Amino acid sequence: MGILKGNAVVGQSGGPTAAINATLSGVIRGALWAKGEGYVDKLYGMRNGIEGFLDERIVDLTEIFSSEKKLKTLEATPAAALGSCRKKMKSPDADPDTYERLLEIFKKYDIRYFFYIGGNDSMDTVSKLSAYAKNHDYEIRVVGVPKTVDNDLMATDHTPGFGSAAKYVATTVKELLRDVSVYTLKAVTIVEIMGRDAGWLTAASALPALSGGMAPDLIYLPERVFDKEAFLASVREALDDHPAVLVAVSEGIRYADGTYVGASGTARDAFGHVQLSGAGKVLEWLVKDEIGCKVRSIELNLPQRAAAHILSKTDIDESVSVGMGAVKLATEGKTGIMMTIVREAGDEYVSSVGYAEISAIANAVRQVPDEYINEASNGITDAGLKYLAPLILGEVDIEFEAGLPKHIII
Amino acid sequence: MGILKGNAVVGQSGGPTAAINATLSGVIRGALWAKGEGYVDKLYGMRNGIEGFLDERIVDLTEIFSSEKKLKTLEATPAAALGSCRKKMKSPDADPDTYERLLEIFKKYDIRYFFYIGGNDSMDTVSKLSAYAKNHDYEIRVVGVPKTVDNDLMATDHTPGFGSAAKYVATTVKELLRDVSVYTLKAVTIVEIMGRDAGWLTAASALPALSGGMAPDLIYLPERVFDKEAFLASVREALDDHPAVLVAVSEGIRYADGTYVGASGTARDAFGHVQLSGAGKVLEWLVKDEIGCKVRSIELNLPQRAAAHILSKTDIDESVSVGMGAVKLATEGKTGIMMTIVREAGDEYVSSVGYAEISAIANAVRQVPDEYINEASNGITDAGLKYLAPLILGEVDIEFEAGLPKHIII
Repeated sequence: MGILKGNAVVGQSGGPTAAINATLSGVIRGALWAKGEGYVDKLYGMRNGIEGFLDERIVDLTEIFSSEKKLKTLEATPAAALGSCRKKMKSPDADPDTYERLLEIFKKYDIRYFFYIGGNDSMDTVSKLSAYAKNHDYEIRVVGVPKTVDNDLMATDHTPGFGSAAKYVATTVKELLRDVSVYTLKAVTIVEIMGRDAGWLTAASALPALSGGMAPDLIYLPERVFDKEAFLASVREALDDHPAVLVAVSEGIRYADGTYVGASGTARDAFGHVQLSGAGKVLEWLVKDEIGCKVRSIELNLPQRAAAHILSKTDIDESVSVGMGAVKLATEGKTGIMMTIVREAGDEYVSSVGYAEISAIANAVRQVPDEYINEASNGITDAGLKYLAPLILGEVDIEFEAGLPKHIII
Repeated sequence: MGILKGNAVVGQSGGPTAAINATLSGVIRGALWAKGEGYVDKLYGMRNGIEGFLDERIVDLTEIFSSEKKLKTLEATPAAALGSCRKKMKSPDADPDTYERLLEIFKKYDIRYFFYIGGNDSMDTVSKLSAYAKNHDYEIRVVGVPKTVDNDLMATDHTPGFGSAAKYVATTVKELLRDVSVYTLKAVTIVEIMGRDAGWLTAASALPALSGGMAPDLIYLPERVFDKEAFLASVREALDDHPAVLVAVSEGIRYADGTYVGASGTARDAFGHVQLSGAGKVLEWLVKDEIGCKVRSIELNLPQRAAAHILSKTDIDESVSVGMGAVKLATEGKTGIMMTIVREAGDEYVSSVGYAEISAIANAVRQVPDEYINEASNGITDAGLKYLAPLILGEVDIEFEAGLPKHIII
């Protein structure tokens, strides 16, 4: 394949993470390299993903990020600095106007490289766009770069963004373990962690075991059916052993009949409207009703994906690398691919940047494998800890301003 | 007053904070100094406060903390390393046995210095104990060292523990502001912050304004009556201006009739039991019902007081200083006092360690003063920001182990 010259564009899509801007920084770093090599002139950023791009709401990133210092600040800024969207692209047959419009904008700005950072839906966009351009004889390289705190994408050992979220979850759970253990009174604390279909983040709550020994007594993932009676028996057993019991649960745990534990606790507010409760809240009520001891639930909520003040250096370094790698591979002729992180074989953790053909990636969810969950379905095995441990290693030097982490606003 | 020689004991009481162990470290540092000066031989730590002390559950801290490194780790360990209790002491008349038992233990271990780190109840314990010992001709110096993330104690400019909790709240709110602003869709996010009777921590959510400009659109404290209609009008106005609206509320906000906003949203669970909701959840329901846009609520919950991974250096330094100061003043003959932090006059922030006679401190709550709250009762003034800003300054170097902050377990 020959050298393709022109401009590049990058967008962010889907739910933000604390590392999605590190990947953006990687793409910018890659573009600066590609500029030096003569492949790329300008790197545009689309505001609010493909949605803003269709309105030509773009910024010149090569101009804005002229200094290493700014890139470093971007790498420690949470969420999506370019804004995001939740647009799911239809097929070209179903929505030809959108594709024609995209082609028009590509031509207008001489866009030859298209980088899209996001989750499953974004990879779908990459796949469709890549095929459409090929069918319309417009030469463009379309590369997807994954991100999600859920760690549930296929084809990659883990996803950029997961390590930092896991570090935040494990740190917070470790601190909560200290907090709830100060009294001699019997008490149950239930921590609800993100993860609708996969329990990776909840599994990370087991990591404090590797640094000081304390860890949640019980951990429940959506990969296993949630059994109310078994849960209550395990809580009672733990309470017999020590006063402060901590339980970590995924938001997505389900009963045998497939209903979410959360949805089963539907409540009515003062106005009589039905309100959904979280799984943690429902288990809090259950413990209160059936065991009767002091109990509280804590939903870690959005801070799990936004907490850029305690990033995993491993995650941020890898997030930057996949962004840079995306540009590199595109200049080499790759298109319709998704970047991946490859864990090398061996006892020591070494990762490298890889890629997979997007068409080969099913829209499937990668769940926590059986060998990472204990037999009682209420804890993480040593094999699981071994998989998770290196992903949270290392800290990123954060710049503070007026006592708070400094963020960049584009 | 002459030199008093003997042993010392220190305890922690009430709800933990991220800085209560820094104060413990200060007391240990003070005891090591006092040992060198010949005042104190051993410093005992009581497990689970006065409750454990009554069972003689004590440890020798002068032996455990022989190295500077261990003290540094202790200063970054959240919660109460010695354990805590919630015991409210009755008067000697009402419960003579307890006081006689205490005197017995004092004599048995030759305790001449008694340091108690805690909130209002702990200061009450200090006051009663100091008076009782005096009336029974047992020479002992009893000093209270305050702590609370609520910052609501009288006589001190602010409380040890508040600055770190405020830094965590402001950091988290700053990160959430980035997170919720990525979409173009209109959405309201309500963040519920600790503070039953005083809104200090909630006020700290305004601090991101000093580092980057973004801040919550609306802030509601328990110091002002919460008006539902005014709230809805303000949210609507903010939504007209920009899509992502963030509201910070204290858990303790109340309607004009004195009922808690939280309690007013009582819901019934699947079993028909009445369940209390938080103020944030009730406002979430209100916005959903009355405005109808996307809305979510986030309760920051226990991590506010447990997050030792993002400490305020100012807070930790001061927390250590009041602990050391307590020992110093006790050796000088002071008893029945509570340590305080004094803010020196002048534009630059300078603080020093002070004290107040405990008998002079009413069991009153120190609320956020009028001049810190805006006229519309939904925001913080520049004067408020000026008071808060220095308390979150500086970061503490945290030691990590297996990717997580290292804690010490006594």
